[in-house]
Amino acid sequence: MIPTISVPTLILDEQKVRGNIARMTQKVRGLGLAFRPHFKTHQSAAVGEWFREAGVDRITVSSLRMATYFAKAGWTDITNAFPVNILEMSRINELAGSVKLKLIVENTEAIEALGQQLDHPVGLFIKLNAGNNRTGLLPTNMEEITTLVRLIKNFDKLSFAGFLGHAGQTYRARGKEEIINIHQASLRSLQPVIDHFRADYPDLIFSYGDTPSGSTATNFPGVDELRPGNFVFYDLTQATIGSCTLDDIAVAMACPVVSKHPDRQEVVVYGGGVHFSKDRLERNGKTTYGQPVKWTDDGWEVIDDGQSYVRKLSQEHGVVRLSPELFRDTNIGDVMGIVPVHSCMTADLMKAYQTLEGTAVSMLTYV
Amino acid sequence: MIPTISVPTLILDEQKVRGNIARMTQKVRGLGLAFRPHFKTHQSAAVGEWFREAGVDRITVSSLRMATYFAKAGWTDITNAFPVNILEMSRINELAGSVKLKLIVENTEAIEALGQQLDHPVGLFIKLNAGNNRTGLLPTNMEEITTLVRLIKNFDKLSFAGFLGHAGQTYRARGKEEIINIHQASLRSLQPVIDHFRADYPDLIFSYGDTPSGSTATNFPGVDELRPGNFVFYDLTQATIGSCTLDDIAVAMACPVVSKHPDRQEVVVYGGGVHFSKDRLERNGKTTYGQPVKWTDDGWEVIDDGQSYVRKLSQEHGVVRLSPELFRDTNIGDVMGIVPVHSCMTADLMKAYQTLEGTAVSMLTYV
Repeated sequence: MIPTISVPTLILDEQKVRGNIARMTQKVRGLGLAFRPHFKTHQSAAVGEWFREAGVDRITVSSLRMATYFAKAGWTDITNAFPVNILEMSRINELAGSVKLKLIVENTEAIEALGQQLDHPVGLFIKLNAGNNRTGLLPTNMEEITTLVRLIKNFDKLSFAGFLGHAGQTYRARGKEEIINIHQASLRSLQPVIDHFRADYPDLIFSYGDTPSGSTATNFPGVDELRPGNFVFYDLTQATIGSCTLDDIAVAMACPVVSKHPDRQEVVVYGGGVHFSKDRLERNGKTTYGQPVKWTDDGWEVIDDGQSYVRKLSQEHGVVRLSPELFRDTNIGDVMGIVPVHSCMTADLMKAYQTLEGTAVSMLTYV
Repeated sequence: MIPTISVPTLILDEQKVRGNIARMTQKVRGLGLAFRPHFKTHQSAAVGEWFREAGVDRITVSSLRMATYFAKAGWTDITNAFPVNILEMSRINELAGSVKLKLIVENTEAIEALGQQLDHPVGLFIKLNAGNNRTGLLPTNMEEITTLVRLIKNFDKLSFAGFLGHAGQTYRARGKEEIINIHQASLRSLQPVIDHFRADYPDLIFSYGDTPSGSTATNFPGVDELRPGNFVFYDLTQATIGSCTLDDIAVAMACPVVSKHPDRQEVVVYGGGVHFSKDRLERNGKTTYGQPVKWTDDGWEVIDDGQSYVRKLSQEHGVVRLSPELFRDTNIGDVMGIVPVHSCMTADLMKAYQTLEGTAVSMLTYV
């Protein structure tokens, strides 16, 4: 079933999405943990409803704009998993007045600004560096962590919610075993902080989780809440890491074929960096920007023949190297399906989906 | 002068933009060539007006959506420099009925589809592969080129406009000398085709041009029309190639500082892949996603100290390594300026500008 499109379009397999949601929801429940999926991947109120139907009642976002969008869509319990930006105080105040809002902090400046300027209560997570070296306090920096916990208590609108960690370094793993090793090392490094403060704050929440460990690990010692996000769609990166199979990937770009080059066994599709993003990946010994698919009766199958891959993206063009058979069978005006390297970035760029059945699915737009 | 912003914002130095436009316009006129700047970089009707004020009356775009947007903004002579996508025939027809439209073709399928389905005249450029190996016929493939030229003449709505080439491989150059060598080799490879057909078609247009060669070369033998685009803003890539100085870069992202990490001499800014794009570049022996700037009274100066650079981007985060002095002087809540690696992609993501004076400048939105 080839999607009916005329320009690059992000195709969503609703059954796969619902399957990915159901699997993760059941897993997290089975572990006895709270589930607060990250909505930054899909950024869609409609997809959010599929989570709600699966029993989800709390969400994670990565910007206040996203929080506002989902608050308008009826979500009332929202954590913004991005360090507080003290320049956005008025929007924080607005949100805190309408939903149960949790924010993350990692310095005294943000806590003081919030404490002095907020009119509504917010819960604060202290961000710990789970080994990813992006944000968060090092778990060995107990002095600073203690300072922040104490400072939060000075302000009546602020409450200490607990600790939040994200082991993004699992994205550098290859294979389940490596994911789980990284996951265990990450949790081990944070455990002493959690244990230390849990003695005084028995209700603190330890919020954790990335898609690779959420998809593969079965042991989350000390963790109270999981926040994976990408699993809703997965992508070529997750399949290459070992978080999912190629068959679990629930989105594919549909791109018109505009040019054929027999001398290079390459076709050019309408679909470039402004559609896919420029994320890339080593796979089968090649740097790929996406893998072509074969359309089937009920969706698609990813082609992983070691020969076919998206070799290059420029602003609007995608250059796709194909096996001799695929090249022969591909014609000008065909619609080529391509699974993206990084579905979060592709979705963010495309700003809309079309289901396999042809239904338009809207998402957050910033404009 | 630090921009007043609360979320990642693309700052535009209007004086530099107008300077870049004036310099290129004068150069192309001085060479006696037609100037058809590519508008895919800025995608803004407002910036388009600055070109119009400099005397520009014809433009290049990279999608039909962009063509429609600029047609609505009063542009009447538009070339879409992307191979015809035969799935968009109805939009082509619509545009061809309202502006002087030129398209590019490189296969019989597109010519036949246009010939059979168009109600309004369009000019067709045949795309030649100028060495970039993306789209276009190899200039050695005279047989196929001749076939296409003849086929075009079979249809009364189609006219043969000439040849179009884009030596995108200049982006792999480092230094002006290398750009010019690539440029000369590219033109030499296309020359026989142009000469051959000019004998029978004295009015054919040879349309050519990329920002690196447009900015550095002074000799364009056989060329009738230049189509550079990126020069309007330039970026870190162009400065690294040697097309411009760091001082010519006319856009910078303004990003709130949200986190400081003394152990790594790194700050985290609100500004990630969904703002900058994931384009990256080797510079000063490091892989950078952008260079921080120092705000000055009338704009900014790029910091190029060999120590400070954007080390990593995730969806919303930018991790910026700083020199000890810069790290010390940077505080939570500051607004950090960062020049992008690839201004076309950053502008496409941001979908709006703010001038140094605080004026909002709108651009094309796809939604």
